[in-house]
Amino acid sequence: MAAKANTKIRLLVDAALGAEAPVALSREQAHYLRDVMRRTAGDGVILFNGRDGEWRAELAELERKTATARCIEQLRPQAPGSDLWLLFAPVKKARLDIIVEKAVELGVSRLQPVITRHTDVERVKTARLAAQVREAAEQCERLTVPDVMDPVALTDALSSWPAERPLLFADEAGGAPALAALQGMAGEAAAVLIGPEGGFAPEERQAVTALPQTVRLSLGPRILRAETAVIAMLTLWQAARGDWR
Amino acid sequence: MAAKANTKIRLLVDAALGAEAPVALSREQAHYLRDVMRRTAGDGVILFNGRDGEWRAELAELERKTATARCIEQLRPQAPGSDLWLLFAPVKKARLDIIVEKAVELGVSRLQPVITRHTDVERVKTARLAAQVREAAEQCERLTVPDVMDPVALTDALSSWPAERPLLFADEAGGAPALAALQGMAGEAAAVLIGPEGGFAPEERQAVTALPQTVRLSLGPRILRAETAVIAMLTLWQAARGDWR
Repeated sequence: MAAKANTKIRLLVDAALGAEAPVALSREQAHYLRDVMRRTAGDGVILFNGRDGEWRAELAELERKTATARCIEQLRPQAPGSDLWLLFAPVKKARLDIIVEKAVELGVSRLQPVITRHTDVERVKTARLAAQVREAAEQCERLTVPDVMDPVALTDALSSWPAERPLLFADEAGGAPALAALQGMAGEAAAVLIGPEGGFAPEERQAVTALPQTVRLSLGPRILRAETAVIAMLTLWQAARGDWR
Repeated sequence: MAAKANTKIRLLVDAALGAEAPVALSREQAHYLRDVMRRTAGDGVILFNGRDGEWRAELAELERKTATARCIEQLRPQAPGSDLWLLFAPVKKARLDIIVEKAVELGVSRLQPVITRHTDVERVKTARLAAQVREAAEQCERLTVPDVMDPVALTDALSSWPAERPLLFADEAGGAPALAALQGMAGEAAAVLIGPEGGFAPEERQAVTALPQTVRLSLGPRILRAETAVIAMLTLWQAARGDWR
């Protein structure tokens, strides 16, 4: 009983949430609750769906393949998240996993894989990314869930870039110190662009730096791996312009 | 030849570095250069030792178990690094590996494992940490190498804490927004303290917050994993007070 009470289970669901609302859980969630976490009908669980805030709920029915919960009370109202995109060139699996998990923890609203000439892994498994995003959102207590986009070519992303969204580019070749530049910016929307481990090809770099919305930023004198640069840039954005203030 | 020319090899050595100085490489380095990277005598390599700057060198002799290089010219003079310690409760292996690698990339000068009541892994392999630190220092182009300390009990670390070194504590229970607090501080020395995944025990938390040098800082509204909190706090310190300015 002690273990049960101490381990809070927080699940992302599709259904609408509201007082007394019955919520169908997925087959995977039924399995997780019953067979992994040893929950039974009557136990508590926390639910969110990205739209209706966070709710305390109770398991009404829990079978091997199906489960239903019932909302009891709203714990937190829905609040808008950051308008912060991450454009990333897919790297090898272990480091890509880090990028996805940390982007969710750090409040990214959209994950956009971009294919570049030096991209290590051309075939991005969008369904796998989406599953990682769900799990990380449950874990980090977000109320929103980032969108996982299908991969696009970097050149296509740049050619249709929104006029009002700065593209923050961590440039090893130099740029303004990132923190001071972010603190001097205006606006709520932004995107962070991180290149592949091998760096951008010269013509890609040219296309990125030629975009008027691009802001070249420096992350210090050491060479950062792609996932470190992602975390550092998202941290600075949240601290300087986002919801860490 | 193209692969050779494009792949820069940067090695941390023990020997003194200076014009024309012969430098004995380790048995592991000889194996790496000869059998993994297919180098031969006459090929170039970059050397640093944490004291004499960074040098371009040439392989003078390269056998299966021994290798010698000869310094040719200094590429960068030695420069002092940040005076920034990281105190971390060891977590599970995969996430501990991330913490160590990122701490090196982000300029930490001392890695201090601390044992807490909720520490997952009590037996910290200091030799393994030191090897990871060397590899990360080679990779990220640092000129200095962080010290890897033997684990100490958190209570012992706190009871002998240096008077002039702020202890930055990422506190999920609340604290000042980290960036503004760091920008308002003075002094060059600091330490970052990150607790175990299960959090500090109440009496440990009490001991940390009672220390006059402790600065409680908030890293935003979401729950960050230990390694994310490490990277975020080190990023903010370098950006606000360190060598990213």
